[in-house]
Amino acid sequence: MDLRPIGVFDSGLGGLTAVRSLREILPSEDLIYFGDTARVPYGGRARETLLKYARQDVRFLRTFDLKAILIACGTVSTTSLEALQAENDLPVVGVVEPTCRRALLVTKNKRVGVIATLASIRSGAYEAALRRLDPAVQVYGRPCPLFVPLVENGRVNRGDVVIETVAREYLRPLLEDGVDTLILGCTHYPLLQEIIADICGPGVTLVSAGEESAFELKRLLKARGLRAEGDRRGETAFYVSERPENFEDIASLFLREDLHHAARRVDIDQY
Amino acid sequence: MDLRPIGVFDSGLGGLTAVRSLREILPSEDLIYFGDTARVPYGGRARETLLKYARQDVRFLRTFDLKAILIACGTVSTTSLEALQAENDLPVVGVVEPTCRRALLVTKNKRVGVIATLASIRSGAYEAALRRLDPAVQVYGRPCPLFVPLVENGRVNRGDVVIETVAREYLRPLLEDGVDTLILGCTHYPLLQEIIADICGPGVTLVSAGEESAFELKRLLKARGLRAEGDRRGETAFYVSERPENFEDIASLFLREDLHHAARRVDIDQY
Repeated sequence: MDLRPIGVFDSGLGGLTAVRSLREILPSEDLIYFGDTARVPYGGRARETLLKYARQDVRFLRTFDLKAILIACGTVSTTSLEALQAENDLPVVGVVEPTCRRALLVTKNKRVGVIATLASIRSGAYEAALRRLDPAVQVYGRPCPLFVPLVENGRVNRGDVVIETVAREYLRPLLEDGVDTLILGCTHYPLLQEIIADICGPGVTLVSAGEESAFELKRLLKARGLRAEGDRRGETAFYVSERPENFEDIASLFLREDLHHAARRVDIDQY
Repeated sequence: MDLRPIGVFDSGLGGLTAVRSLREILPSEDLIYFGDTARVPYGGRARETLLKYARQDVRFLRTFDLKAILIACGTVSTTSLEALQAENDLPVVGVVEPTCRRALLVTKNKRVGVIATLASIRSGAYEAALRRLDPAVQVYGRPCPLFVPLVENGRVNRGDVVIETVAREYLRPLLEDGVDTLILGCTHYPLLQEIIADICGPGVTLVSAGEESAFELKRLLKARGLRAEGDRRGETAFYVSERPENFEDIASLFLREDLHHAARRVDIDQY
């Protein structure tokens, strides 16, 4: 039994979809969320910039006495995970490896698609992890640079010609490649799950990155005897490097519930 | 005759549309362009963050011996111009006031629309400047948060249902308000000029921010005897705080010509 909180961070508010998964899968745990809203988006930035930002994010989170860290940002997980694991004396879980294991478990034809930000796709990290776990897999990666701004502007609903047109363009080549499993490799994408499922049809299984890393964290905490168990309902504290004026709207969209506490602002440049 | 260069900066590469205007309107001048690509987008950030970034951008540009500075960023012009003018002993031109003067010159019914980023619209700076110049004007502001990502993903062409649908949604309320003049208050928007003109029809005159500030700068340099005249063809040096992998593509899109020199990288946090 360990009541110390779990730290979660992302480039912005997209990581709140991982918070939502953690609250479902580990309801007794306290969470500290940091969203680097002053420097969002990370996707597209250079590797050295990403590592610098990720180190600052972790340094801030570790001002709390944490028992584990979940990197809810696909871009950081694919570029900086190993450095962060080497530098920190507590478990650091990314989104890539758990997601790849799940994808390989569900694929039948060994053709796995990956959609993510440009930086994540270009890093080749999903592809490398999938191949390491199963050299026979064929991986089809596709950057979807417009998905994040479209989600953040609420274009997530069936019947919206804008999101449906963009999603069809992005997904068509993957469907032509015959993938039977599709990794949603960015925390924003679970909000597009319905749209993506409609376009892909029942022959493609969607694997959502945030959810798989929450399951991974659960296994890891259990194995090490670090879980906060029992009837207690964990609490979540929210920190952001800048408070967008429409913070509540976006946060509620990602959490799919109304925020109880406002987010506090952190000057991340000081970490 | 003054051969010192003009400094130009923007949050990213959108300000290159202003460089394009400057090259047409002041072809003999040397230009130093800084695009803060590591921290783009500025739109949506808090006022104190914007001022901090703008001061760093100016400090970097002033490592060169400049004769004037053009703020090609609508968001900075609407939040930080007065502070930058007070702090610097050289002419600093923003995009707001020249654009507003032009809009008031062309409007007949005194109903002027403004489209810009969320931060620019919320700052109310265009509205305040228009009213100061003509208290009888009616101003209709509208944030267009998806225009920047759509432009940066090349969705600028007629017949693209995505950009046309989004543009129609953004512009419809302004047309219903009966504006006869529309300020394109963000440097990215000139790339959407055709799309916007198609939707607005011939009854609405478009006024482009970057172009008007280039004319303003020309008048100002002439009045102070600071122009580089004659047959010389000015050169432009490009600096960015981070080099996006697709820099050439985006830069060529904004400049509407191929880049001759690659951009050099600047660590803007050091300024």
